[in-house]
Order: sequence, then structure tokens, then C-alpha cells
Amino acid sequence: MSEIADPSLAPTGETKIAWAADRAPVMATMRDRLRTTGDVEGRRIAVVLPIEPKTALLARILAESGAEVSITSPPSMVHDDVAAALSAGGVEVLARRNMSTDDEQRYHGMLLDRRPEVIVDDRADLITLAHTSRTEALDDLIGATEQTTSGIEVLTRLDAEGTLRVPVIAGNDARCKHLFDNRYGSGQSVIAAVLDRTNLLMAGANVVVVGYGWVGRGVARVAAGMGARVTVTEVDPVAALEAHHDGFEVATVLDACGSAEFVITCSGVHGALSPEAIDRCPDGVVLANAAGIDDEFSVPDLAARASTQRRVRPEVDEYEMPDGRSVFVVGGGHCVNLSAGEGHPVEIMDLSFAVQGLAAAHLARHGGEMTPGLHALPTSIDDQIARDKLAALGISIDGRGRQRET
Amino acid sequence: MSEIADPSLAPTGETKIAWAADRAPVMATMRDRLRTTGDVEGRRIAVVLPIEPKTALLARILAESGAEVSITSPPSMVHDDVAAALSAGGVEVLARRNMSTDDEQRYHGMLLDRRPEVIVDDRADLITLAHTSRTEALDDLIGATEQTTSGIEVLTRLDAEGTLRVPVIAGNDARCKHLFDNRYGSGQSVIAAVLDRTNLLMAGANVVVVGYGWVGRGVARVAAGMGARVTVTEVDPVAALEAHHDGFEVATVLDACGSAEFVITCSGVHGALSPEAIDRCPDGVVLANAAGIDDEFSVPDLAARASTQRRVRPEVDEYEMPDGRSVFVVGGGHCVNLSAGEGHPVEIMDLSFAVQGLAAAHLARHGGEMTPGLHALPTSIDDQIARDKLAALGISIDGRGRQRET
Amino acid sequence: MSEIADPSLAPTGETKIAWAADRAPVMATMRDRLRTTGDVEGRRIAVVLPIEPKTALLARILAESGAEVSITSPPSMVHDDVAAALSAGGVEVLARRNMSTDDEQRYHGMLLDRRPEVIVDDRADLITLAHTSRTEALDDLIGATEQTTSGIEVLTRLDAEGTLRVPVIAGNDARCKHLFDNRYGSGQSVIAAVLDRTNLLMAGANVVVVGYGWVGRGVARVAAGMGARVTVTEVDPVAALEAHHDGFEVATVLDACGSAEFVITCSGVHGALSPEAIDRCPDGVVLANAAGIDDEFSVPDLAARASTQRRVRPEVDEYEMPDGRSVFVVGGGHCVNLSAGEGHPVEIMDLSFAVQGLAAAHLARHGGEMTPGLHALPTSIDDQIARDKLAALGISIDGRGRQRET
Amino acid sequence: MSEIADPSLAPTGETKIAWAADRAPVMATMRDRLRTTGDVEGRRIAVVLPIEPKTALLARILAESGAEVSITSPPSMVHDDVAAALSAGGVEVLARRNMSTDDEQRYHGMLLDRRPEVIVDDRADLITLAHTSRTEALDDLIGATEQTTSGIEVLTRLDAEGTLRVPVIAGNDARCKHLFDNRYGSGQSVIAAVLDRTNLLMAGANVVVVGYGWVGRGVARVAAGMGARVTVTEVDPVAALEAHHDGFEVATVLDACGSAEFVITCSGVHGALSPEAIDRCPDGVVLANAAGIDDEFSVPDLAARASTQRRVRPEVDEYEMPDGRSVFVVGGGHCVNLSAGEGHPVEIMDLSFAVQGLAAAHLARHGGEMTPGLHALPTSIDDQIARDKLAALGISIDGRGRQRET
Repeated sequence: MSEIADPSLAPTGETKIAWAADRAPVMATMRDRLRTTGDVEGRRIAVVLPIEPKTALLARILAESGAEVSITSPPSMVHDDVAAALSAGGVEVLARRNMSTDDEQRYHGMLLDRRPEVIVDDRADLITLAHTSRTEALDDLIGATEQTTSGIEVLTRLDAEGTLRVPVIAGNDARCKHLFDNRYGSGQSVIAAVLDRTNLLMAGANVVVVGYGWVGRGVARVAAGMGARVTVTEVDPVAALEAHHDGFEVATVLDACGSAEFVITCSGVHGALSPEAIDRCPDGVVLANAAGIDDEFSVPDLAARASTQRRVRPEVDEYEMPDGRSVFVVGGGHCVNLSAGEGHPVEIMDLSFAVQGLAAAHLARHGGEMTPGLHALPTSIDDQIARDKLAALGISIDGRGRQRET
Repeated sequence: MSEIADPSLAPTGETKIAWAADRAPVMATMRDRLRTTGDVEGRRIAVVLPIEPKTALLARILAESGAEVSITSPPSMVHDDVAAALSAGGVEVLARRNMSTDDEQRYHGMLLDRRPEVIVDDRADLITLAHTSRTEALDDLIGATEQTTSGIEVLTRLDAEGTLRVPVIAGNDARCKHLFDNRYGSGQSVIAAVLDRTNLLMAGANVVVVGYGWVGRGVARVAAGMGARVTVTEVDPVAALEAHHDGFEVATVLDACGSAEFVITCSGVHGALSPEAIDRCPDGVVLANAAGIDDEFSVPDLAARASTQRRVRPEVDEYEMPDGRSVFVVGGGHCVNLSAGEGHPVEIMDLSFAVQGLAAAHLARHGGEMTPGLHALPTSIDDQIARDKLAALGISIDGRGRQRET
Repeated sequence: MSEIADPSLAPTGETKIAWAADRAPVMATMRDRLRTTGDVEGRRIAVVLPIEPKTALLARILAESGAEVSITSPPSMVHDDVAAALSAGGVEVLARRNMSTDDEQRYHGMLLDRRPEVIVDDRADLITLAHTSRTEALDDLIGATEQTTSGIEVLTRLDAEGTLRVPVIAGNDARCKHLFDNRYGSGQSVIAAVLDRTNLLMAGANVVVVGYGWVGRGVARVAAGMGARVTVTEVDPVAALEAHHDGFEVATVLDACGSAEFVITCSGVHGALSPEAIDRCPDGVVLANAAGIDDEFSVPDLAARASTQRRVRPEVDEYEMPDGRSVFVVGGGHCVNLSAGEGHPVEIMDLSFAVQGLAAAHLARHGGEMTPGLHALPTSIDDQIARDKLAALGISIDGRGRQRET
Repeated sequence: MSEIADPSLAPTGETKIAWAADRAPVMATMRDRLRTTGDVEGRRIAVVLPIEPKTALLARILAESGAEVSITSPPSMVHDDVAAALSAGGVEVLARRNMSTDDEQRYHGMLLDRRPEVIVDDRADLITLAHTSRTEALDDLIGATEQTTSGIEVLTRLDAEGTLRVPVIAGNDARCKHLFDNRYGSGQSVIAAVLDRTNLLMAGANVVVVGYGWVGRGVARVAAGMGARVTVTEVDPVAALEAHHDGFEVATVLDACGSAEFVITCSGVHGALSPEAIDRCPDGVVLANAAGIDDEFSVPDLAARASTQRRVRPEVDEYEMPDGRSVFVVGGGHCVNLSAGEGHPVEIMDLSFAVQGLAAAHLARHGGEMTPGLHALPTSIDDQIARDKLAALGISIDGRGRQRET
């Protein structure tokens, strides 16, 4: 049974989900396929994902295809109205916007109590739990799929150690996921969330992008496309060199922060933006985190060191430091496009969640034949998603054979 | 005495104004200058502008410099909390978010009842009124300054006819206004408002930009910078040719609309996007108006022709047409960055309102010596604003003399 | 009778002119018009322009339309094969690649000896001569048209002084000229010439653009489009502020040169890049001049101060300075796209020379009715050129009336 | 003993090599390393690479580090002056600009006659020869490294078949090679070569890019950066979808060619641009090949079908088709930046040839311990090259450890 903030919010949530559904042709095709194949029919599926309209659509499609779906979310990333609509439609929802870390733990436990056969995970939290204090959950578990870069890092380590006892699909690493979601999705939605919340100007601004992975590339490109002067920081020398050739300034975090007006963390590394670096930033700097993990910079540390702290605009907090500088944080240091916005654009999540849904279906049908450990999404599924999207866009491309023959 | 929605909203409004004030160094310098020169000391100034944090700051600075300031706003563009804070600070505010057109007319009349010596106008509404049914207001009026492109069009016609009886400064045509506000300001804030309200994706989208003036150029550039494929429509052959060389598709409105996912009107021309053109748009098209006038496309006509109409998201209305297509309108067809967003970024309005404030001060001191008719802002004031902004940014440039001498 | 380097080069030159002619639809339309109207029939026209395939096409079309055409060129900008082909086709050509400054003066004199009725001028050289030491030339002169920004500066001064004794059309200021030629034409051809001659990389390079007029904007945009990090220097505070908002670094020339890998002068100001600034540049800096005047930086001064000087690649000279730094100059400090390349792209000059040709025809027919002094090209001619180009591109646009009616 | 066109050209070639050497800090560091380690001391190394200044520098550095170096080149890609200078400096050069295919075969044979211990190969030609008709060459061969994408395709097939009998390093796949050379290097130099040879305009042009691998991405980005409207064709659905989200039109080759002004093949696939597609192109289309293989489109087929053929400008041939359309080919259909230009920019080849040189050195020292088959360049070498380049640029980055610790 669901635990949500307010069931009466369902109509608003329903409208939001409908908006997404109308713009998600690839997931619509997936629904048709799943209903035809019956791959998830009767399967118990546990989902951990931010609860917003697009994730709701994924959960709902799985349910409509015959699966028993339970879902929870990382804290700070729940739209209560969407949760209400999803629950009303027959999905078990365990999440509230203002839930505590204790709630989060408890809901994770409850999800495993349902003895899921397939897990759709975020940051590998549930998979880790099932491999540590809740190993009995492994008895029924066929496999799992993981959505985030940071989750993949955890799973790669577990895989190298030989710890994984079920097949796990690196959903994030599917081309139809990370090339689009992390790059175009984060690129647009992170910048839009920061600008919407602050009403500040990107043209001419000094923007520091910490990390030049797919998220960082997307954020840097959109910022530059709006006229910002972007400085990139990287620890990988080749990626740093790419940033240089892409026309960006490249520097250490400490040097870059010296003239930063915005700092956007995109590295997936805890503490990538250190307190020392924040102290280098000029008065008025705006900080936001674009990554899948919460502590690229430490808001608790900032709060502890600040003389005063106050909310100056919705989702914007000012920390006045003892030296008189003000540091502004958008979205509480959580992934800003979700905590201070509505997440990735619909069309992007149409791809990402087709990856997750079809990965879950693949595990439901073929997981038993797969070896434990980390697996790539089969190329044929990845390609099919891209072909479905191209078809929805009305774009034709050449066949591989055609060119080779001529 | 003010007529506002709710005085108790003042603290929220105050926080918003403070946010803007901290990021408006050029207006801060202006305040210091006006206080020193006393140019507006004791002057009655009537202001018509959307009431949001940055306009509030202008009104407040004029008041703090000794002027008696009364302000109203076009409908749909009032932040009630900002209105409350402004009123609490001693400015007479006549505006509410939900005021009717009748209210608007009444407030315009009340502003002229105050017998202003200087008018800061928007769309030339108040100036026109003072030259038609309320000519007694001309007795005390020293001069006026106008903020918008569409207002300048009206005033140019009046000036050509010899109708204007006071000096009017074409504030919009100051380089520090239109080159920045119309281009970078609209460019960012229009696209951000549309994306924020719809959660849709710009990368890969077909975006039609109607009109390639400064607003259209800004909107086209930002959209392209986010990965959109932009088609421009123009009536001026040279501007059309520029758009072509800037890498955009150029077409008639009817042809462009045939594959549009977004249509953004930026032309300043009534009916630039005709019902016939809207009927060419594919199902699901999103319409928004970026211009200073309200009826670049006719929402009443759309509503009259639609089978059903409903609000699908905040500030997004769906019109289902008899042929089954849905047309979505963001921000009610009003200038979208104000009706569905917070207006131009702070830093941009710092320039625009320094233009208006210094134009008002120039009129207060020198208006009596100026001939009736349309005047440019003196170049020295325009340049000084740019120099103040460069100084605030910490940017040094060469002197004109230095280069010539070498 | 022509004075050229080598008449036997005509076939090569003819092929070059044919290449341009095939890609110049606007000039083709102009030829048809001039033949129909007879506007230049029997008129004596003197032309001063760099002699390359596109200028040759203009001269030839004027001749084919019945004019008696004599042409010379600024030094260093003559393609001897094109000169030969042009001469073979009945135009009097007075120019050789290696002509001296004395030759240049002599040819200017000879052009005036022909008693031209219309002058198509470059840098206002011939117009100035006709108003100073050769005033008898004014007896037959109906009017003149001027091609360059720097020429317009001279003419504006003469006009303000009341010195001009014939009508002069500011051809450069036609929208179809400066918006395209100075921006897109220079933008591409200057960068391409520098890269072709040096084989160096633009991606990641520090490029200093001196001057942010139309030429500077074009050069900055193309450089940035190839991945360069561009720093702009300006003396106009508003233009400097635009460059800042366009995403470029803005600094004084001295500061900008401190980290320059390329410095490209685009200001139209003598000595814009001073010896002191050149001395700030790092070892290996590459200098090029994109402007219509020759001495934005002084090559003679550089040569005088250098320890050694040598040609290291075609059109690239190394100056080794006493402090050990090497400074490289592309194209001898002359306008680099002409001195080290083939000039503006064909399609651009199709517009520019339609402006000059139609300005000349307008003067031939209506010059007698025009007042002495500087005139704009009639808007109707400017618009018609744009319409002819759009038609050649197959682009339709809306009529002005159509939008207003709806 | 060398076989070259003209030894007297050595001084010109020497100047060209010196220009490159001054801008190749990574290779300079490599030379210091190789001299210290002695890794190639006394080794026989056979090199197949286009002979231009940067390849010459690689060959020379290997020779200066003690290796016995013999070099030949694909046809059409030899700078005879550089060949002369290289030969004068002690490298055996077997190549002339106008050598025949027979010469090419003979020189390949002669290279193997030298019994090389290490091969630096282009398109896998020499490696293939040593594994087929000249297997005795394998007796002395320690290993090889391959420079091109198309060579890697051949080698991957041989590797999958188990045919390779020595270790081969996929030099092309090193990050410091393909991410820079194929993308930024081709991007700039291909567009610059086409524009330089044709004097045509990119702004507003319809450019078709066949293939969206690293070369295609680079070419598309630079063309768009200059104002072109780019259409991408792809056979990989995910890459096609990326191109769409990057803002490009995506279509089949046949559809794209229908409105093409330029078609640039970048796919690495024989016949990617079919005769049928060329027949779809409008009159006046310009074709160029940016890929490492020669026959992405068939020039012999075009010549066979054309009514007439003539050279209209240096490196530009016109083929007049029976239907009256003219098709222009730049650089003879060979890789255009080499056949009609000077190849990649110096700074890019500094990276690429550091990869090849250090791969060769790694094989010379460790090849005996490596298994036969295709190998990646060791990451430590790849990273070190990037670090050397960053150091030369004066760019500091954070250490991996530093961020994790905080």
C-alpha cells in the first residue's frame, strides 16, 4: 500500500503525466511491445527513481504491461501530485517530498520486502542493500538495471570484486541513455533551472563547470550557447585537452573559482568542489550541483561555516561567510534540475526510460540465462530504441548494407 | 494612495527587490548621481512598466532621489508581492495581477491626474492618452521617455505628423537598451520561460522565429545555442538575407509553420502569426509571444475556433482544434518572459532602467530647453552607462585617443 | 591602353573570372537591367579596386553594358592573370602585382586623365585626388561611390567640412554591402587565409580581435566557431559591452596581447596595434590585418626594430626581435584576405558589387539632380539587391502588407 | 637510398619542417625521452605516411633517436620539397608527388626489403603485405602501429580471423589521436582546404556531411560554426540521433544530396556517396572527401559518365554530366586536406605523431613480450602525451587524488 503525502493531489499529477505521455513515443511503442510479448506479465518490479512525470510514466507502463510495481525515490526529488496520481493508478508508491533519510531507508527495506524479481535502481542503492544486509532478497531477484553514472561506479567496483550475485545491466551506459540524458538532458535542464530560479544572466557570465564528462559537456555547451564564458576543470588529462580544443578555458578548481559567477558541479565525485575552492569564489557566486550524487560540494559544511543563512528566493539559499562574502546555493546542493526544476525534458526521458523498461523486460525474460555481474544492454535493444525515436521524428536513414554495396 | 492586491505580501516582494538591487551596479551608480545632482528632486514622475523586481528598483531609486513616483503596469505583468513592497516604500502603486482592462484604463487616468512632469512610458500608452482625451495633462508635462520598440513605432508616426507637444526620448533606441535588453535579455528569458513551463527539449527541435529584429536575433541565437533548428520569417529582405547567412532556414510564415514544434513571435507586428498559419502547424505545436505587444497572434480567435480549451500546466493552455490538432499557448499570448516568467535577467534591466532613469532625469533638468518631438538619448549618457557597466564588470578598454596617437 | 604584367596570362585569368561569374546571380541580373535601361551606356567610369576575379566581373559587366571603364588597384592586391583577362576583354587596366607606390600615384593620375563621369572608389583615394591637386577632373565628374569603411571616414569628414563638390554614394554603408561583405565575407576569408598560410590550429587558440565593428564581429564569430578563445579590444564602450555579452573576453590591446597566439586587426584605425602592444605578445605570435587600411600595425617599424627578418612560408614573414621573440606577419600587414588569399568569397562580392554597379548607374542617370555631398544608396536599390539574392537562393519571404492585414 | 623528385628542393622543405618543429612541443619532449631511453636506438623502422612537414618531423625524430628509418607515402600526398629535406637529413625516402600506383607497390616492397623491426603504417597497407605475399618480412618484425580508422577496420578483421602474427598497436584509437586528429584536425583543415580552393562561401550554404564519426563531427561543427546549414547522413541510428540533437538535419544520402551545395564524405566507407546520389545533387555541387580512404565516391566513375571534364581552378575539376549539370571535385577525391592542402594543423599532428612515435618505441622495447594481435596503446602513454601537451600550453589541472580526498 502506498505511503504518499496527499492522495487528493492526483488530478494535478495526472495532468502532468498525461503531458509527458503525449510526448513519449518511444515508451508508447515499448508499451505495445511489452503487452504483446508479455515479458513483464506478473513480474514483481521494484523501482527507485526521482518521482516526477516521466518516471511515473515508466512505472505506469510497466504496471499496465502486467507487472506488480513498487517505487520509491531519493529524497528531495518527489513531486507529491505525481506520486498521488501514480498511486491512484495502481502502483505502490512509497515517497513524499519531505521524507527524512530514515524514511528513505525504511522504504528501501519495504521495496525489498516485496521480493522483487527485477530492480530498476538509482545510484545502486537497492542493489547494494540486497547484497549486504538484506541478502535474502537475492533469492527471488533475477536481475537489476542501473540508471546513473555514479551507480555504475559502485557496480563496477562490486563486479571487479566478484561480489555481484545477479546479472545487472548498466542501463546508464546504453548509448541511448548517457549520450542523450546526461548530455542534452542535463545540459538544458540544469542551466534552465539555475536561470529560472535566479533570474540572472548567462550572456557574458563566468561559468565554471567541474567535470567534463557527458553531463559537463552538455552543461558547458548550453552555457556557451547562451553567451557564457566557460572554464572547465578536469582530473583526466585527455578530457581536459578536449575541453581546451572545444574552446573552453581549462584550469584547476581553485584557480577557476577565483573569478566564478556560477559554479556547476558535474563530476560525479564527492567533494569535487572543496570548501577551500568555495572560499576562493567572489562575493555573490551561485553554486549548483548537476550530478547524480548529492555531495559534490558540502552544504552542511557551508552551513556550519556561515555566519548567517537565509532563503532569498524559492530554492535559493544565501550563506553569508565570516569574510563577508555571500555564497548562493540553488536547489540545496541536490541534483539541481530535479530539486529546483522538473528534471530532464520529456523527450530525453522517453529514451532513458525505454532503456530501463526494456532492460527490465530483458532481465525478466532472459535474466536466468545471464551470468551474475555487470552487463551491457544488448546492442540490438539500444539500436532499436534509436530507430523507434527516429521513426517518431519522421527521420529516415540509410541502411548499413546499402552503402557497402555501392 | 496605492491600489494593490495584498499589502501583506511586502516582505516577499522586498526580498525579490533586494536580490535585484544587489545585482544592479549601474543603477546604484545612477542613484548616487541623482542624489548628488538633485535632477529629479521634487519632480512628479509617472511610470508605466511591468511591475516586477527590476522595475520596482527603478521606481524606488527615483523616489529615493526625491521624486514623487506613481506607477502602473500593463495587465498580466504584475507581481503582487513586489507591488506591495514598492507601495510600502513610498511609491504610489496602482496595479494588481488580475486587474481588468477597465482597471488599466482607470489607472492610466489616475496617473495623469497626478499631473506628472515626466512620464516613463511603455508602449506609449500614457503619452498617447495625454495627447488625445487628456490633453490638460500636457500643461505640466515636461517630457517623456519610452521603453519599447512598439511604443517607438507609435511615437515615430506621431512625430512625423507633428503631433507631439513635448520632447520624448526614444529610450528603447538607446544602444544600452535595445542592443542588450531586446537581444540578450529576451533571448535568454523567452527561451527559459518556454522551457521551464513546458519541460520540453530544445535540442533537435524545429523552432520558428517570426521576425528577425533584435528580439528575434536573440531568441534565434539562444535556441540554436541549445541545439534547435531555427527557421526565421521576415518581411524585410535584407534582414531575411542576414538570417540566411547566420545559418538559419528562411521561409514564409505559412511554409515555416508546416513543420514547427515551437513558434515564437518576435516581430512587433499585430497578427504576424495569422490563424491560417496556426492552422498549418502540426499537432502539439507550442506558441509563445516574445514581443512587447500582445496580439502577434490572436488568442481570442484561437479560443473561438477551438473545440475545447483547458489549462494543462501552469501558464500552458491547450486549444483542441476541430481538425483534432492540439495547439498549446504559453503565457496566454502575452509577452512570455513576463507572463510566464520573471522578465529579463537582472543584469540586463540594470542597463535598460539606467537608460530610463537617466532619460527621466535629463528631461527633468533639460526638457524645457528641448523642442517637442522625438529625441535620441544623448550619446554621452548612453556611453556613460556602458562605461559604468564595464567598470562594474572590472573590464578596462582603450581610450579612443590612445589608438589614434600611436 | 592597359599597363599590365603579362598579357599572356589572360586564359588563366579568364577561367578565374568565369568561376566567379557562374556564382554571381545578382550581378547577372544587374547586367540584364543595365543593358535594358542603358544607364551607363557611353559613360566613362573609373574604378579603383583590388583586381581579382570578382572586381573584374564588375568592371566587365559595366563595360558590357556600354561604359568605357578604366581600372587600377591598391598595391599588393593585383592578380596579374585576372588583369590580363580583363584587359583582353576591353577594359583599360593599369595595375601590376609588383607595382610601386609611384606607379600607384601615376595610375591614379591616369584614371583622372580619362575624365571619368563616375568613380567607383576604394579608400576615397581618387575622390580625394579629384578634390585636391586634380580639381579639373571635377568638371566632368557626375558623382562617385565608395566601397570601404575607411573611405567613408574620410568622406564623412570632407562632407562635414562642406568640401565635397559632387554627390558621393556611401556604397559601403548600404546594408547589402557592409552587413555581408564586412561581416561574413571578412569573417570567413580572413580566418581561412591565416590558417591556409600558417597551417596552424584555431581550436583552443587565443585570438585577439582588435575592433568589434562588422569586420571584427565576423572574424570573432568564425574564430569562435572553430573553437578559438577570442579576446576583443574596443574603444567604443557600447561595442565592448556587446562583445562581453557575446561571450568574448574584453580587454585593452596591451592586456589582450599578453597571451595572444593570433592578433587580427579589424579596427580601421591607423596604429591600432602599437609597437608597444606587439612587444607584449608572446614568442611565436601571428599578426594579420583584416581591415581596409594598411597600417593598423606598422610593418616598417617592426622591420626596423627586428634583429633579423626572413620569409618562412609563402606570405609569412618572421621578425626576430632583439629580446629573442619571433613575431610572424601574414600577408605583409596588408588586408590579409587579399594579400594572402583570393579575397572575399564570390557570393559575398556578388552583393557588394551589385551595390557598386547600381550605385554607379544611379549616379550616371540621376547624379545631376543630386546635391553635392555624401548620400545613402536609395533604400529601394538596397532592397532590390536583397530580393534578387533571395530569388537566386530560391527563398520566399512574406510581404510587408500581408502581415499587417491579418 | 632515397628515390625522390628533386633533391635541390631540400632548403624549402627544411623551412617547412622547421616551422612545424617549432610548434610541436610534445614531439620535442618525445625526442628527449627517446634519446634518454634508447628505445629505438639501432632499430629498423618502416614508415608509411603522407610526406608533409609533420610526418617528416616524426621520421626525423626517430632517426635522430638512433633508428634507421625508411619512409614512403600514399600517392598524391607527397610534398617533394619536404621529401628532399628529409632525405638530406639521413632518412631513406621513397616517394614522389607524381608516382604511379606501380611505384607505390614497388616502394612498399622496398620498405619490406629493409627488414623493418617496427612498422608505422597507414591504412594497414604494409602490415597486410607482410602477412600475404611478403611473409618472410615477419621474421624480423617485432610489431606495428596503425594511424588510420580505415586501417583499424582491416586490422580488426584480421585480428578476429586470428591472422595477425605480430602485435599491432591501434594507434588511431588512442584518445590523443582520434579525439583530436580526426575531429579538430579534419574539422578545420578539410573546410579550410575546400574554401581556399574554391573561394566559395560557407555562411548560409547547404553542406552535406556523409558520416558522423569523429571526422564527420569535426567537419559538421566547423561548417556550422561558419554559418552553414549542415545535413548529416549516417547508417548508425544512435549516431544519427546524436546528429539530430546536435541541431543538424538528418536524412538519407539521396535525400540530403537533393539540395546540397557541398558534399563532404567522412564515413570511411567505400562508395558511401553513390553515383545515384551524385546524380541527385544540384548543378554546381562541390564534392570533397575527408576520409582516410580514397573511394568514398568514385572519381573514375564520374569521369566515365561525364560529357566533358576540365580543371577550372588549382585542385578543382569540373565534370559536366550528360544532363547538363556540373559537378566539381576538390582534390581529386583523395583526402582533401592532404591532396588540396597541407594536411592537419601542426599542433594536432604533434599529438598524433607522439602517439605513433611512442607506440613504435613501446613495440621496439616491449613488442617481444606482447601477444600477436591488435592492442590498445597503453593508457599511461596516452595520458602522458596529454599531460605533456597541457604542460606545453601552460595549463594546470587537478590531480585525481586531490578531489577524492576532500
